[in-house]
Amino acid sequence: MTDRRDFIKQTGLLSLAGVIGANQIAMAESPNKVYAPKSSTWADGSRLVVSATMLFEAGGQPDNAPSPFPPNMKPGYKDLPATTWYEYGYKEGIPRMLDRWDKLGIKVTTHMVGSAVLRNPALAKEIVDRGHEASGHGMTWKDEYDMSYEEEKKFIKDGLDAIKKVTGQTAVGYNANFLRRSENTLKILQELGCIYHIDDLSRDEPFVIKVNDKDFAVVPYTIRNNDLGMIELRNFSPDQYITQVKMEFDQLYEESATRRRQLSLTFHDRVSGTPQMVKAATELIRYMQKHSGVVFKRKDEIARMTLKDPTSLRE
Amino acid sequence: MTDRRDFIKQTGLLSLAGVIGANQIAMAESPNKVYAPKSSTWADGSRLVVSATMLFEAGGQPDNAPSPFPPNMKPGYKDLPATTWYEYGYKEGIPRMLDRWDKLGIKVTTHMVGSAVLRNPALAKEIVDRGHEASGHGMTWKDEYDMSYEEEKKFIKDGLDAIKKVTGQTAVGYNANFLRRSENTLKILQELGCIYHIDDLSRDEPFVIKVNDKDFAVVPYTIRNNDLGMIELRNFSPDQYITQVKMEFDQLYEESATRRRQLSLTFHDRVSGTPQMVKAATELIRYMQKHSGVVFKRKDEIARMTLKDPTSLRE
Amino acid sequence: MTDRRDFIKQTGLLSLAGVIGANQIAMAESPNKVYAPKSSTWADGSRLVVSATMLFEAGGQPDNAPSPFPPNMKPGYKDLPATTWYEYGYKEGIPRMLDRWDKLGIKVTTHMVGSAVLRNPALAKEIVDRGHEASGHGMTWKDEYDMSYEEEKKFIKDGLDAIKKVTGQTAVGYNANFLRRSENTLKILQELGCIYHIDDLSRDEPFVIKVNDKDFAVVPYTIRNNDLGMIELRNFSPDQYITQVKMEFDQLYEESATRRRQLSLTFHDRVSGTPQMVKAATELIRYMQKHSGVVFKRKDEIARMTLKDPTSLRE
Amino acid sequence: MTDRRDFIKQTGLLSLAGVIGANQIAMAESPNKVYAPKSSTWADGSRLVVSATMLFEAGGQPDNAPSPFPPNMKPGYKDLPATTWYEYGYKEGIPRMLDRWDKLGIKVTTHMVGSAVLRNPALAKEIVDRGHEASGHGMTWKDEYDMSYEEEKKFIKDGLDAIKKVTGQTAVGYNANFLRRSENTLKILQELGCIYHIDDLSRDEPFVIKVNDKDFAVVPYTIRNNDLGMIELRNFSPDQYITQVKMEFDQLYEESATRRRQLSLTFHDRVSGTPQMVKAATELIRYMQKHSGVVFKRKDEIARMTLKDPTSLRE
Repeated sequence: MTDRRDFIKQTGLLSLAGVIGANQIAMAESPNKVYAPKSSTWADGSRLVVSATMLFEAGGQPDNAPSPFPPNMKPGYKDLPATTWYEYGYKEGIPRMLDRWDKLGIKVTTHMVGSAVLRNPALAKEIVDRGHEASGHGMTWKDEYDMSYEEEKKFIKDGLDAIKKVTGQTAVGYNANFLRRSENTLKILQELGCIYHIDDLSRDEPFVIKVNDKDFAVVPYTIRNNDLGMIELRNFSPDQYITQVKMEFDQLYEESATRRRQLSLTFHDRVSGTPQMVKAATELIRYMQKHSGVVFKRKDEIARMTLKDPTSLRE
Repeated sequence: MTDRRDFIKQTGLLSLAGVIGANQIAMAESPNKVYAPKSSTWADGSRLVVSATMLFEAGGQPDNAPSPFPPNMKPGYKDLPATTWYEYGYKEGIPRMLDRWDKLGIKVTTHMVGSAVLRNPALAKEIVDRGHEASGHGMTWKDEYDMSYEEEKKFIKDGLDAIKKVTGQTAVGYNANFLRRSENTLKILQELGCIYHIDDLSRDEPFVIKVNDKDFAVVPYTIRNNDLGMIELRNFSPDQYITQVKMEFDQLYEESATRRRQLSLTFHDRVSGTPQMVKAATELIRYMQKHSGVVFKRKDEIARMTLKDPTSLRE
Repeated sequence: MTDRRDFIKQTGLLSLAGVIGANQIAMAESPNKVYAPKSSTWADGSRLVVSATMLFEAGGQPDNAPSPFPPNMKPGYKDLPATTWYEYGYKEGIPRMLDRWDKLGIKVTTHMVGSAVLRNPALAKEIVDRGHEASGHGMTWKDEYDMSYEEEKKFIKDGLDAIKKVTGQTAVGYNANFLRRSENTLKILQELGCIYHIDDLSRDEPFVIKVNDKDFAVVPYTIRNNDLGMIELRNFSPDQYITQVKMEFDQLYEESATRRRQLSLTFHDRVSGTPQMVKAATELIRYMQKHSGVVFKRKDEIARMTLKDPTSLRE
Repeated sequence: MTDRRDFIKQTGLLSLAGVIGANQIAMAESPNKVYAPKSSTWADGSRLVVSATMLFEAGGQPDNAPSPFPPNMKPGYKDLPATTWYEYGYKEGIPRMLDRWDKLGIKVTTHMVGSAVLRNPALAKEIVDRGHEASGHGMTWKDEYDMSYEEEKKFIKDGLDAIKKVTGQTAVGYNANFLRRSENTLKILQELGCIYHIDDLSRDEPFVIKVNDKDFAVVPYTIRNNDLGMIELRNFSPDQYITQVKMEFDQLYEESATRRRQLSLTFHDRVSGTPQMVKAATELIRYMQKHSGVVFKRKDEIARMTLKDPTSLRE
């Protein structure tokens, strides 16, 4: 059976662009960039890199933030049970997950909301001291897409500063609230010394883009493995989540025989910190760890490896 | 592998608070309270306490209360089939569950709406006479978060009085409608002689707080095991409910080897009283009962044990 | 272990009602009626009666009736693909189900919308000629709860007349659109010669009520087994539907050892007439048929058996 | 047991129509057309034809088109992460599916949005060059039901022209956006040289209708197998999708012993192009391919076979 990449070479598709008027394809890119990786493995020889994110958001949420309770309260009152739902994130959730990551022998990336870090500094510091990456997630829970350049720069910087002050670690990556960055976000991140962001769903492997004329890494998000999206928004049960992520992994692992692949997992403090979800994560991670060529990495490690590697995808 | 509690001691995280300005951490608490239980088991030597709640609400619902039928009726008409959906709760649901609890050998807590108790007094009395706990749940189906102190105090007291008059039992606990208590609720409960409430999702074990300068027990709610939330709001099938609760139990049981843990189950009359859900509850409870160190307790028993125990968590 | 019915006798709960003021329990009925069946089996000696309903509605729906397509069309246009979704009900759905009922050896009740009967008369007649019951379901798809007595009487009568004219059968039962009957419906049905209705979810066995001072049978609806509610409104997959209904059956069958029980199944033409749902129904019905003491009956048979039986529940 | 078709002949239902007034049955058709196929197999001797559609839409979507992200953005801003969700469709999704179709040895129909084709011409051409069918899907993502005749004709023709120009293939079939064609669509398609459309859910086999007094094929859509509807709108997990489609297939295969049957599968670039869904499709297609008498065909092949076959259903 003819392989897809061979096929492209044989039929000379690269010359096709001339068929279409230039204005019609202003946004088009050559899809060939995608299909022709220069190396079938990662720089470190692995086939499939899995990266787990543990969100540290609880405690920093605004009053009456979304919760499993119906959003039908009269204005001016505090949603007391919803507040305790968030408290669970730092009282039970993150501690439970931290112990579990140790048992499983993995290091994760923690996107930390600045206000949550200041609310529970000891916990934030413990995360870093146990070997996990602290990464940016804004100063508070706030959309960035509609901020001015100055407002957004201060917002991102305040969050990074809080992380630095409390944990001692300089964050080099970023995740915007609900992924909704503005047109300025990447420029700001580059200016603040960050080397990667994750708010992109377009590929199953990292790639390099130019920001301010310098290389910047995109470590993509696998939204299909996002706990909040699946459990809270789609009403999945944990066993559906397990089965779905296993299927995702199985196919990527098969593909990784001939092409480097990446899978990301997202764990929110108050959602994946529950007993049932920690059990689900355990089953998934142990399943993945049984496959040769699979490694777990923090996102700063992935970004650095990608930026250094001349065979990385570049857009 | 270093245990999490050892780690905290080694790195002296307790001294970290000084890094952050006092005003910024006004709401912060030392997370260490959470991770350092003074005893790994409960006062009675058990590892994991399971507490089942059977809600007695049907019959006391307001006209045209939410039901599986679409909420699109013109005002001024009675939703007749929805009414029969509620009637099922006391005609089939609670009787079926009562027989089942006897077969399984467990005693449960019944949060009783006052108006439902007056509507079906013989059933309310039978619940108590068969050894189950009658606990408060308001006089009617009504939000409390926006009541005045006086209004709420009368509302709670009327419900407790109805229970006392009909069943002979003095209720000592409380569950607010949809958990949405007001800022005054705990103070009122303390004044009315109650010793615990359940409207808190923040932990997987009970803890003691100060209300009016006296000890008051919080027996937390496991919202992930709530039948109404899972079956009616998330559209789970009963087998999803079974699998989810088993996963929750498995992880808590594992943790209970080194730390006391609690799991609560919530059964509404018209939701969990159906044949399929009683079958689901049977499977779950029999599964849990096979594990050594697991005991089923009424919430008044849990509250008393927690209040007396000097090793209980205190906030 | 003490049986629930014995318990009631022992503790004399019947005398309890006096504790509560008469005005407070104006709506209350003695729950004992429910728990003390006079005979543990049905009049024909069976333990558990299963009754399947096949709705004949497609073709009679109003323009732009609800469908799987988003309800966002501008007014004044016809939803063409939605119309073909309904056509499936009579072109593929009912023919497929009819063949299946023959293979399974069961007779069902078909609630027929008058306008659907007139739209596809040959199919309506074939249903009856193959041994199934034609029962009322209104002249068109229309809410009855807000009709005047005269309007509703004509609406119901027109539907029954259409059935009679096309199929030759006199319908004796009724199901209102979305179960939402008016306060007059039962009175009207009694006047028109009907002997039962199904728009009641309160019990897992039929019972007799007085309408116009005459006996009238209520053959209850098991809304948990309704295909439209589960598949279209709750987004169940067919395997969830199978598992849920099996669990419902298992528990009712267990209970039927000591008390007559009923389970109803509801199949809409365009929903349960699909290949996947006919396969689901086949698996369910074959599973039920393997249990001794289980019989499948049309609802007119159930109504007649119940009305004649002096041990039937009466409210 | 009497077979359904024999039954119809025996009871002479064809003569029934006279019972009903002509005006009442103006829309009625003889259902017998449906149940009496003139041949039990397809013209090529197969029992069950499966037709897979791969939608090529990503890249051609309007700004801020629906995505898994909440639709709550202020107007005037671009939904950046949603855009990358669409990009996944052509960067990972279609390339992954194309490789998979080769491995499975099947050819599919690709309904191509004109603007998506112009955005990624090389990919569009590659699809056709690898043996798949290019079929119409409009010039952009736009409802057609409310277009004027002239507007719609230009809209459809522009899309077909883009396909022709980029891929060299003349499209002969059509799928309207969300299936919502106008009253003029079929007439326009016939005028533009198309021979079939798929926007009809009424049957599990193709049929011939008259458009502009000429034969035109309807190759029906199995909406129950639509990935977008199940995964994005009903929140199915991929294993639910697999189970549901297998059940659909099993029943149709059983029926195909005595009657030709068709099943369609729908794969959207950004939904079914994910690893988990390609794994699901692989499992389903391999399962189907194990059954004798099952063939996979492009929709143009199905249309041509149906139009030529004198035993095809005609409406």
